[in-house]
Amino acid sequence: MSSTAGQVIKCKAAIAWEAGKPLVIEEVEVAPPQAMEVRVKILFTSLCHTDVYFWEAKGQTPVFPRILGHEAAGIVESVGEGVTDLQPGDHVLPVFTGECKECDHCKSEESNMCSLLRIDPDRGVMIGDGKSRFSINGKPIYHFLGTSTFSEYTVVHVGCLAKINPLAPLETVCVLSCGISTGFGATVNVAKPKKGSSVAVFGLGAVGLAAAEGARVSGASRIIGVDLNSDRFEQAKKFGVTEFVNPKDHDRPVQEVIAEMTGGGVDRSVECTGNINAMISAFECVHDGWGVAVLVGVPHKDAVFKTSPVNFLTERTLKGTFYGNYKPRSDIPGVVEKYMNKEMELEKFITHEVPFSEINKAFDLMFRGEGLRCLIRMEN
Amino acid sequence: MSSTAGQVIKCKAAIAWEAGKPLVIEEVEVAPPQAMEVRVKILFTSLCHTDVYFWEAKGQTPVFPRILGHEAAGIVESVGEGVTDLQPGDHVLPVFTGECKECDHCKSEESNMCSLLRIDPDRGVMIGDGKSRFSINGKPIYHFLGTSTFSEYTVVHVGCLAKINPLAPLETVCVLSCGISTGFGATVNVAKPKKGSSVAVFGLGAVGLAAAEGARVSGASRIIGVDLNSDRFEQAKKFGVTEFVNPKDHDRPVQEVIAEMTGGGVDRSVECTGNINAMISAFECVHDGWGVAVLVGVPHKDAVFKTSPVNFLTERTLKGTFYGNYKPRSDIPGVVEKYMNKEMELEKFITHEVPFSEINKAFDLMFRGEGLRCLIRMEN
Repeated sequence: MSSTAGQVIKCKAAIAWEAGKPLVIEEVEVAPPQAMEVRVKILFTSLCHTDVYFWEAKGQTPVFPRILGHEAAGIVESVGEGVTDLQPGDHVLPVFTGECKECDHCKSEESNMCSLLRIDPDRGVMIGDGKSRFSINGKPIYHFLGTSTFSEYTVVHVGCLAKINPLAPLETVCVLSCGISTGFGATVNVAKPKKGSSVAVFGLGAVGLAAAEGARVSGASRIIGVDLNSDRFEQAKKFGVTEFVNPKDHDRPVQEVIAEMTGGGVDRSVECTGNINAMISAFECVHDGWGVAVLVGVPHKDAVFKTSPVNFLTERTLKGTFYGNYKPRSDIPGVVEKYMNKEMELEKFITHEVPFSEINKAFDLMFRGEGLRCLIRMEN
Repeated sequence: MSSTAGQVIKCKAAIAWEAGKPLVIEEVEVAPPQAMEVRVKILFTSLCHTDVYFWEAKGQTPVFPRILGHEAAGIVESVGEGVTDLQPGDHVLPVFTGECKECDHCKSEESNMCSLLRIDPDRGVMIGDGKSRFSINGKPIYHFLGTSTFSEYTVVHVGCLAKINPLAPLETVCVLSCGISTGFGATVNVAKPKKGSSVAVFGLGAVGLAAAEGARVSGASRIIGVDLNSDRFEQAKKFGVTEFVNPKDHDRPVQEVIAEMTGGGVDRSVECTGNINAMISAFECVHDGWGVAVLVGVPHKDAVFKTSPVNFLTERTLKGTFYGNYKPRSDIPGVVEKYMNKEMELEKFITHEVPFSEINKAFDLMFRGEGLRCLIRMEN
């Protein structure tokens, strides 16, 4: 039992007071975990595009003041009533979606879209009592994605915490909490390329490069990276990407370029941009007879996917995935083991690091399109 | 060696002299099979909608005069040079698509879309020499789908013939040559419903009912039939359909009706109409997390499939299939065995029978929407 269990903890958190304004590090009060909740000391967090979208709140519901952050690693400080899977001292990755283990989705082998704990970016409170565990001077500060990891301590539903090997370096496996599992899982769990096959990856940011890493690990012999920014091609080589296509370099649809490069199309494609035209290209660039395209990137809410139905009838498959089809509690510990066994590489995704006090620099790096993941170290 | 081998055979064939005009039974000359070809004595054939589309030739390339027909069963009369898999007396089902066993598709476990012998409705000649084997008074009569089974004898590429168990009743397994394999395979090979699952079938013609039969054989507990013609519902019960929805009876999209009936959507759906709106409904009616929709029906060439990409990202899968994903030579003999072992039923698909001399009656039945398959008996 930690000495803080059952007590309000005062600690530092980065508050987003309003849309698009720099975060402010302030002292926040973190209430003890209630039933089925866990209070976690965050040691490392990193910045993901999703944090930025909801911070900008352009076309998203503005929920402020709020503590953002969802890609992180930490240690359990205390647990609420009914929590039996975790105890203080356990190493955990918080995940923006959950696994209640009770609903139809959790009971299905095929789904990871838990009905109870499925991502809900508009919710700023805990599901148990509809209240926030964060406050400043008695005024509530809202949660984000059930994780709010831009705080030294946070409260998370037990269903959104993956208990991992305590020997795993938290500053590295931190990135498995969101983007890297999303891209890697899209390839290995959903696209499932065979050894020697060809894979196209649309978008060479962290998620796309994780998809490429999944293709490399699967033994794909050709990994074609597609991006509008040719500067990304050099870096992508480290992730197994063998060929590059910048759609801007061609005066015909990129799916035609890829079909020509591959004698009819790639065996698998993974779309990690969310751009609707890239989604359509990613589908239409797979080979007839056996091609499988997997959508990962989140589109604009009004986007419409359009294609000739003949592209399906000629035996192409289109699937979408969410968090790489991983169930957070059941599967993520195994992904950490994969890293520990050197079956996948993670260090290369972490290109920058800042102390928590300089968290706004991580936002600047993302806006400049520099690097992949910026690690934010909570303790100095 | 049959006495007719190497000779021109004179026999009766039903000639489509021009689009939409009744077929005329005439004496036709059938040349001997050339390299990699087989001459087959057709004993039974049946009428499929595809024959009617190309006979009407509305929006299709008109190729006349032509011998239609592609769903049939027969016996090998003689074989051309290089044919080693078949010999006179073998029982065969001609198939409108082929399996060369040499191309990328035939070598792939996942595809049945042979590059050499893939369906080509505009081709009216043999692929070997670009000529027809049928003639009347020296004037060529064109082939159809490489099969032209509305003739007592026809010439077919060896790659388009499935050699089947000689004990199988040809008047019954005849229907496995096209429609019934297409629907049944769409369910058992592509949708793959689990025991106890729910399946929606759009379109309750022969192909759709074969898809339902596949769901029944797979142990689906709910099979929801969707059709604009409620008269089809009574017959569909014989094929395992447990519930019916006529979209005309509802003032909201049928996918919403099905989602409500099933607590979020069916586990699998199979679309057998080719109507673009039915295709979209069939996709959108499957459950998030694990739903799989399979497209079978052939759409209008200008049709566009439209949906929100979010329907994919919530882990739905959309696939198309062609001939139920069966490879004609490798797989169809096994489907015949399935029938012989009473693992699937075929008799219930054959609702009518006419002698060859009355073949136009089969067209009349189809236009009136009566029955499922009309068997055409070549010998009186």
